[in-house]
Amino acid sequence: MERDNTYRHILKWGDKREEEVGHHMVTLIKEKFGLTDADFREKYLPGTDEVRLEKPSLLKPAQADFLRSISGEENVLTDDFHRTQYSCGKFYGELLDLRLKRVPDPPDAVVSPRSHDEVARIVAYCSEEKIPVVPAGGQSSVTGALRAPFGGIALDLTRHLNRIVKINTVNKTVTVQAGIFGPALEAELNRQGYTCGHFPQSFEYSTVGGWVSARGAGQASTGYGKIEDMVVALKAVTPAGVIETRDFPRTAQGWDVFRLFSGAEGTLGVITEVTLHIFNYAPQNTRLAAFIFRSFEQAVESMRRMIQSEYGKPHMFRISDPQETDIAFRTSGFDGTFPDRFLTGLGFKTGSRCLMFVTVEGERDYAGFVMGKIKRSARAGKGMYIGAGPVRKWLAQRYSSAYLRDPLMDLGIMSDTLETAVTWENLLKVWSAAHEYVRHRPRAFLMIHISHVYENGANLYFTFLTPMEKGNEQQDFSRFHSGLVDTILASGGSISHHHGVGRVLAPWMESHLGRSSIELMAAVKRHLDPNNIMNPGGTLGLQ
Amino acid sequence: MERDNTYRHILKWGDKREEEVGHHMVTLIKEKFGLTDADFREKYLPGTDEVRLEKPSLLKPAQADFLRSISGEENVLTDDFHRTQYSCGKFYGELLDLRLKRVPDPPDAVVSPRSHDEVARIVAYCSEEKIPVVPAGGQSSVTGALRAPFGGIALDLTRHLNRIVKINTVNKTVTVQAGIFGPALEAELNRQGYTCGHFPQSFEYSTVGGWVSARGAGQASTGYGKIEDMVVALKAVTPAGVIETRDFPRTAQGWDVFRLFSGAEGTLGVITEVTLHIFNYAPQNTRLAAFIFRSFEQAVESMRRMIQSEYGKPHMFRISDPQETDIAFRTSGFDGTFPDRFLTGLGFKTGSRCLMFVTVEGERDYAGFVMGKIKRSARAGKGMYIGAGPVRKWLAQRYSSAYLRDPLMDLGIMSDTLETAVTWENLLKVWSAAHEYVRHRPRAFLMIHISHVYENGANLYFTFLTPMEKGNEQQDFSRFHSGLVDTILASGGSISHHHGVGRVLAPWMESHLGRSSIELMAAVKRHLDPNNIMNPGGTLGLQ
Repeated sequence: MERDNTYRHILKWGDKREEEVGHHMVTLIKEKFGLTDADFREKYLPGTDEVRLEKPSLLKPAQADFLRSISGEENVLTDDFHRTQYSCGKFYGELLDLRLKRVPDPPDAVVSPRSHDEVARIVAYCSEEKIPVVPAGGQSSVTGALRAPFGGIALDLTRHLNRIVKINTVNKTVTVQAGIFGPALEAELNRQGYTCGHFPQSFEYSTVGGWVSARGAGQASTGYGKIEDMVVALKAVTPAGVIETRDFPRTAQGWDVFRLFSGAEGTLGVITEVTLHIFNYAPQNTRLAAFIFRSFEQAVESMRRMIQSEYGKPHMFRISDPQETDIAFRTSGFDGTFPDRFLTGLGFKTGSRCLMFVTVEGERDYAGFVMGKIKRSARAGKGMYIGAGPVRKWLAQRYSSAYLRDPLMDLGIMSDTLETAVTWENLLKVWSAAHEYVRHRPRAFLMIHISHVYENGANLYFTFLTPMEKGNEQQDFSRFHSGLVDTILASGGSISHHHGVGRVLAPWMESHLGRSSIELMAAVKRHLDPNNIMNPGGTLGLQ
Repeated sequence: MERDNTYRHILKWGDKREEEVGHHMVTLIKEKFGLTDADFREKYLPGTDEVRLEKPSLLKPAQADFLRSISGEENVLTDDFHRTQYSCGKFYGELLDLRLKRVPDPPDAVVSPRSHDEVARIVAYCSEEKIPVVPAGGQSSVTGALRAPFGGIALDLTRHLNRIVKINTVNKTVTVQAGIFGPALEAELNRQGYTCGHFPQSFEYSTVGGWVSARGAGQASTGYGKIEDMVVALKAVTPAGVIETRDFPRTAQGWDVFRLFSGAEGTLGVITEVTLHIFNYAPQNTRLAAFIFRSFEQAVESMRRMIQSEYGKPHMFRISDPQETDIAFRTSGFDGTFPDRFLTGLGFKTGSRCLMFVTVEGERDYAGFVMGKIKRSARAGKGMYIGAGPVRKWLAQRYSSAYLRDPLMDLGIMSDTLETAVTWENLLKVWSAAHEYVRHRPRAFLMIHISHVYENGANLYFTFLTPMEKGNEQQDFSRFHSGLVDTILASGGSISHHHGVGRVLAPWMESHLGRSSIELMAAVKRHLDPNNIMNPGGTLGLQ
């Protein structure tokens, strides 16, 4: 097989397979947006051309030579394909750019260091030479955090720095190099009786360093915690030196320096090693349950009572709002079946009914105990248990919905996701404001779910679909997207719960966090990165 | 009653009552240290003189006037007694100083602001005038964090900034002014069906702002978390402006700025308001259990297995090592009784047996479920259940052992506590190294317990007793104390788990954390406090 040097190869998710939108979903899209098969005859903006960059690499020959002398010839790439591949992540606007054959922010080279020491030498050299450095893991960022607006090098941590350093079974921790992907980590942990407990939708194509840098959350984060809850220690290379913290449990020796790197998104330095908590691997203990509620309000109230009851916690804990529930029912062929009519008869009606999915993991009796409590609470909250099947089905495809966006774009459908953390007090306000906003766009559809739950609030996760404005795709998207961000923030949501900020959400940072907080963050950055080489150009709103 | 203006009044703990060392304990001390009643005929260094300061207040009249114009005449005190009262906390070395009529580091004035805005105006003014500001809560610090080596003002937050701002029952959070004491907070929460979940030994005489600044841990922290786990948001006045964070659950909007103030010990600014998670108040649900193990090693191994089993967690979770267990048995009159002989016959022998205390709180069935698991695990780990009584007894006197140090010092006994966070892997190493160190001092006694437990490790809490070297009390203490710190760090412990660093442990910070980390902390400090007015003079090792 010939090497696939196309934009399409770069923009596509995961294993690069060609996916199609399922039959039920296509019918729904046609119906909702008044489209016909004629609209889908050809793939829209397929991006099948071969990559060509107009910007030559601006790295001076001496600089490229020096980098090669550190990491070896084969680990310093300056060809168009690799520079394009490392010019972005998987943000909708970036995928659109690639389909439009635009590569606005390529790095000048892609460097794959072979050791922590090589990273240290590269960062020191780049700081001296004022060459930007953009650390890259699995490149699944959806926030524009991987762009190189000032060129420089993309520092690929996945090629070599991808090993497990140590599994410590006494402390129940694992130390890994930052460029290890989820599956490699999980497979070895499973072999030894443990799990990492962190399963973001990008799990198969994201790295521990990326998880920590962006403050990711996994699908079972309600039980296992977000990645920042799992970090015990880390090692990071900064232009001001190496920061290495130790694996003490909860100390009181000033504030936690390591926490600055969790959420820094590459702006402070390069995380090279991370020590994480690990958990017992016992999938046979996992209890599953799906419930249906008559309204989003009832489901949310029930969820809040469950998480605040102090009888233990679910691991995965989700609610799909009525819009998402309806899509789930329609695309699975459930609509109109006997069980559907049965549910409708009981008052669980299309347009208002909501699904709640729960897993409880851990020790066998604990999982049974907590699930028993959850079932009783659901009943008390007017939810109905509908079996474990829907959750099992959902888990079986837990990573595959990420493949849906590319074929949707092939159909000319704009589709993006946003998410926010919000207190219980403001949750319904943000939820209805977002729906209200999207209703104002003709032919637009929004579905929302909750997938990470805390004592004082939860996240809301927004997925919208709407036909692209052909010929004006970027501007139209950008306007629509930023209106949604404005709406979320104005009604009481945060900038992000687990996608991070990157460059896409950076413009909102100062007004959202306040000037004193942003100035404090900028001061930390100036100290660690005085020449502003670490992921420069707006990430986190620091410039 | 006349006002008690003595050093003794200042140095004494809590409600200032005159305590005596119990009969059993005195017998033990005489026996262990070869002392007789003759040695105790008079209170040693009783500190009953009236306070007299040699250093006059260096505040210029115009400065004092300006502070009075902000906070009112009655809230700016410059008399000797108050300046002395605010010159220190409750570190052993400080108590000794007071007994020796030494006041090395008095502030020039004690100011009690009436509002957040007054704090802001005072901090801005002091920054301009380069007047040091030492924030003070309950003054229970045992790390020298409250001294004013460069004078300036002690900022007393307890007099006015001590109110509950809001109990949010939807988000299960409470917002308080930083100067509120534990009991006032807990009483109002209890009235509304909640608890703060944070019960340090200093609970009655410490404040929320102090808890957060020093990163305290409560007696039930294994279940409820340390104070830094409970902080949802805070408001702090810094010379560079007000930092105010919001109450979102777990966001990904850069790193958490509010976390810098947790552990800053007053070096970055003044925390004026804190929002904390709260918990359901249901003391009737609490399950108690005490176990006895044949050795410290067995007890620790059993505890580790319990916390790593993922069946839920105890709230209070403690082990007393053989030395502490023996003292507990002897001073309670248990030694030599029939049950004692019974235990001895079963192999739980004096000199090696260990007590483990457990409570499980929260929802009723959960408490029962987890306690059932703990009991089974204890049995599997060769521990024996000995009833709930010992735990109930311990809880009844949970805050009173803090009163013991003053009468011990009256007897001429040096007694101090240290504590560390350590991984399971290093725990026994630190434990035996500390005992080994203390064994080298003639007539010294060390007891150690574990009282805060995590998946990857625990704390060790050291209490030592030894006769003072009369006439050379400070130097002798200082040498002995720092040798113990050296020992703990060298064998794998951290500087502190929950007392904090202050000025006493500051000298170890750089070598312990590494130069890059300390420089990073210093850079944060320089940004927020460019004139170095916030708790200056070495706190946290920042100078």
